[in-house]
Amino acid sequence: MVIRLHGHGASRGTALGRARVRLPYTQETGKKHVPAAAVPAELERLHLALDAARAEMRDLRHRLQGALPAEVGEFLDLHAMLLDDPELLVALDDLIRNNRYSATYALRTQRDRLAQVFEGMEDAYLKSRLDDLDHVIGRIHAFLHKRPAGVKGLAGEILVCENVAPSELAQLQSQGVVGIVSSAGSTLSHSAILARSLHLPLVVAASGVLSRINDGDVLILDGGTGEVTLDPGAEDLRQYRLRLRELAREQRELGRLRSKPTRTRDGVDVTLLANAESHEDVASAHAMGAHGLGLYRTEFLFLQRNELPTEEEQFQIYRDTVLGMSGRPVTIRTLDLGADKADRTGLALTSEENPALGLRGVRLSLAHPKVADAQLRAILRASGYGPVRVLVPMVSAREEILAVKRRMSRLAVALRAEGHAVAEQTPLGAMIEVPAAAIALETLIDQVDFLSIGTNDLVQYLLAADRNNEAVGALYSPLHPAVLRLLAQVIQTAQAHATPVAVCGEIAGDPQMVPLLLALGLTEFSLHPATLLEVRRTIRDSDLRMLRQRGKKLLQARDRRGIERWIRESAPA
Amino acid sequence: MVIRLHGHGASRGTALGRARVRLPYTQETGKKHVPAAAVPAELERLHLALDAARAEMRDLRHRLQGALPAEVGEFLDLHAMLLDDPELLVALDDLIRNNRYSATYALRTQRDRLAQVFEGMEDAYLKSRLDDLDHVIGRIHAFLHKRPAGVKGLAGEILVCENVAPSELAQLQSQGVVGIVSSAGSTLSHSAILARSLHLPLVVAASGVLSRINDGDVLILDGGTGEVTLDPGAEDLRQYRLRLRELAREQRELGRLRSKPTRTRDGVDVTLLANAESHEDVASAHAMGAHGLGLYRTEFLFLQRNELPTEEEQFQIYRDTVLGMSGRPVTIRTLDLGADKADRTGLALTSEENPALGLRGVRLSLAHPKVADAQLRAILRASGYGPVRVLVPMVSAREEILAVKRRMSRLAVALRAEGHAVAEQTPLGAMIEVPAAAIALETLIDQVDFLSIGTNDLVQYLLAADRNNEAVGALYSPLHPAVLRLLAQVIQTAQAHATPVAVCGEIAGDPQMVPLLLALGLTEFSLHPATLLEVRRTIRDSDLRMLRQRGKKLLQARDRRGIERWIRESAPA
Repeated sequence: MVIRLHGHGASRGTALGRARVRLPYTQETGKKHVPAAAVPAELERLHLALDAARAEMRDLRHRLQGALPAEVGEFLDLHAMLLDDPELLVALDDLIRNNRYSATYALRTQRDRLAQVFEGMEDAYLKSRLDDLDHVIGRIHAFLHKRPAGVKGLAGEILVCENVAPSELAQLQSQGVVGIVSSAGSTLSHSAILARSLHLPLVVAASGVLSRINDGDVLILDGGTGEVTLDPGAEDLRQYRLRLRELAREQRELGRLRSKPTRTRDGVDVTLLANAESHEDVASAHAMGAHGLGLYRTEFLFLQRNELPTEEEQFQIYRDTVLGMSGRPVTIRTLDLGADKADRTGLALTSEENPALGLRGVRLSLAHPKVADAQLRAILRASGYGPVRVLVPMVSAREEILAVKRRMSRLAVALRAEGHAVAEQTPLGAMIEVPAAAIALETLIDQVDFLSIGTNDLVQYLLAADRNNEAVGALYSPLHPAVLRLLAQVIQTAQAHATPVAVCGEIAGDPQMVPLLLALGLTEFSLHPATLLEVRRTIRDSDLRMLRQRGKKLLQARDRRGIERWIRESAPA
Repeated sequence: MVIRLHGHGASRGTALGRARVRLPYTQETGKKHVPAAAVPAELERLHLALDAARAEMRDLRHRLQGALPAEVGEFLDLHAMLLDDPELLVALDDLIRNNRYSATYALRTQRDRLAQVFEGMEDAYLKSRLDDLDHVIGRIHAFLHKRPAGVKGLAGEILVCENVAPSELAQLQSQGVVGIVSSAGSTLSHSAILARSLHLPLVVAASGVLSRINDGDVLILDGGTGEVTLDPGAEDLRQYRLRLRELAREQRELGRLRSKPTRTRDGVDVTLLANAESHEDVASAHAMGAHGLGLYRTEFLFLQRNELPTEEEQFQIYRDTVLGMSGRPVTIRTLDLGADKADRTGLALTSEENPALGLRGVRLSLAHPKVADAQLRAILRASGYGPVRVLVPMVSAREEILAVKRRMSRLAVALRAEGHAVAEQTPLGAMIEVPAAAIALETLIDQVDFLSIGTNDLVQYLLAADRNNEAVGALYSPLHPAVLRLLAQVIQTAQAHATPVAVCGEIAGDPQMVPLLLALGLTEFSLHPATLLEVRRTIRDSDLRMLRQRGKKLLQARDRRGIERWIRESAPA
């Protein structure tokens, strides 16, 4: 029988696939007991999982043999020892045999018992060794559920869950998930914004899905209307195919906007720049008719390698990017590494208690002058091949901009003396993502040629809420009155100083956020090429004068609900 | 021969003691090589340290025997294995014998070699096992330098270092350090502020001390004048005793201020509240003539124990605190736990990537309604015994204040129905420490009765700089134009709404910061009783009208140097 469940459409697109249900942590232990008759089978399951975990460990040990010093191998031996530990095995067997616990529940129970012992310890070091235990238990658990790490078991499936974290969306998509439906969540959450930019269909707030849908059920999900169809019939499948065709037509129509101007209904031109970090992004930015690159990230040059990139290597990549944009400006952001995306070159610190509040961005660059100079030289050399701008991340004070500026002038003089072609002027800009830089913008704006507001980080600092921490996921949102006020203030200050200002955070690429940003006075967006055409369409459908009039009301909203209401009421018809 | 070195006096007081030199990391490896003749002795040193580390490990294993499940013991075995690993031992011996490395340098070299292997690994888990290796190497290192953990070898000594981190000051003092001199640093740094509040003599920016002073040298340090006397003579010692007597007299004079009003020279009364978390603090606050408690911390009730405190237990402690202040208001801050000061009761999350941006303060309380209710009930019951105010930490939005408010009214009704004496009104206040709450204060101020600005956290979020991370220690400072502007804005908004506002961060207890805070419009300070009398004296020496006139210039400062200049020019004569 066809069952229809309803949520809110959070990311357009439709998907057909089998359900993969992920129960929340608290419900996962639901099946605690097994019938007496099932005990032998459950013991068997456990021991098969233990064997698999042991085999995995042996295999890892074998593959690493010789490549590692003996000291390292011993950590693996410890894990092997844990897997063979009689106390652990007897305890698990007992729980299943005597208490008729499921293997999963027995594992959790024993884990919690041990965790209690660990956590009661005075010695901080021993206490932290709970991680080792959890690693081993985690591997057994994975094999119990026959989903060893690395096996992509989600291809073509629709994830049914309570909530999805922004941090897992990209990974889920790359594992082949074709759509997501969550029982909680909001259409304006960070996850929803991200799902839209990934074009991953998402339905949120679909209460009841967790109890109604089982693993393997066939579903059709419509991320536009929010409808979830369980066990679809022939007519549903026909409708699904129609909808697919409709979406394809829509894509074609969007395609026509590639060469159209980004002009509001009342005739104001808006600048659309692209965020990019690969050749594909650059090609795509060009193809979508971006006015330039607003944020070219350079971290990829430093990650997943053991040595720092040379000046020459960087120069060639920056030059090719400049050539790839054929005369449109390219904004190269200097290195934005930190302990959260620590490189293997030894540049970033490997451990900080709060990496988001640590040595990252321009702080790291200024701490490594040689590395900073190699990058700045490479950028300045690329400026001989087309318009280049330099964007400095994590600026918190005037002193930092001055330090970069001094380096750049000195390097430009040296490069010209060496015979390199260097542009007359290379505009220097600051990312506005540290709250202090936004609040005290007046103290540094005379030293920059342009600004780019990094809303992703700005929001996390303003709200003191880590954007990747699910426990504060509900707090992390750009829809806070303080965020809007500060954005309005930065845009206003920039305009008063005739300094160009863009927003380059995720919200700039979200069609739903466009009216809000236009209302705050923004006329320059920097976004991933994937949603550029949709954003252009929304801008073309917008009446700027009307939105700016309504902007005052937006700034008066005193909570998130008020801001969400404004957005609903201001969407183009 | 007497040698006099000069720095800046950063924390008043004088000290006489032997020097303990701590070379910076980069210089620590300075003595890389030993003469050929010293090789056997160096090998001997290494092996004694290895033996000591092994003995420590055995001892730990022995003490824990029986108390722990076998799984836990195995982690210890791993470390024992590492200490006996032939590869490690041979490598170390080789480095000393063939390369004539010092034992310390050999250890570092081998550690770095292994670290490189670890860091090159793809497997994130194995990579993180570098910690185990570092733990073991760290123990050997500690024994090499004969300072096993827990031995307090610093009693009566003066630490000579390049820089001292705020996070280590309290510990150094408790280990018996009587004074500190650093070759770098500033008198307005976070460390200097903290040293003053600890009454720990500190001289900063004393260049040359690291090269001139050796371990064991006798020093006299004057944290007022910034003078450091090496190998003092009879006359110096006489001067030292005179200075001690002078300081004691000053203390007695300060003591007379206990019962004096906190009134500026131009006759404006300022409120001095105390920060407290123990009986001693409460007694001291009372004795120093505090007008009440502005911040009574409750975390201590939840730390270092395995069970949550009951409502009754909390009630008795809160009631005793209220009684201890005999009628002066007591501001009880609700639980401010987080993963950075995780309790053993299982309340706070045990691991977050950025605990400072995680589930802490009111977020944690609202996630555990039963725990929050027990605390609020205990506080409300204490309100029957004297004036009590409730202060909510980490407020970021109106919704959170409303949630606490609703709980409180409901609980008050229930308590009265149960026959408890509960005050008619219990004022509710918000900590202003999340930037969003400061910036959008207008959206929530109608829901609070008072405000307390937590500058310690506010500064770290505004500048995106962890206050305990040395790598960004130079950035973490309240002397940033954005901090001052936001403070001024919060104070102004509060005054416009006739809502009392205090500052309760460390700067409120720093006499040097008093003129600045007065200039920004502040008339309520909450500080540790230790510096209450000094702050009172500075306020009594201040001319408020003049400071407020100069306040405009303060807000125009565009960098830290400008703010420091303002402070120097505005100190009372």
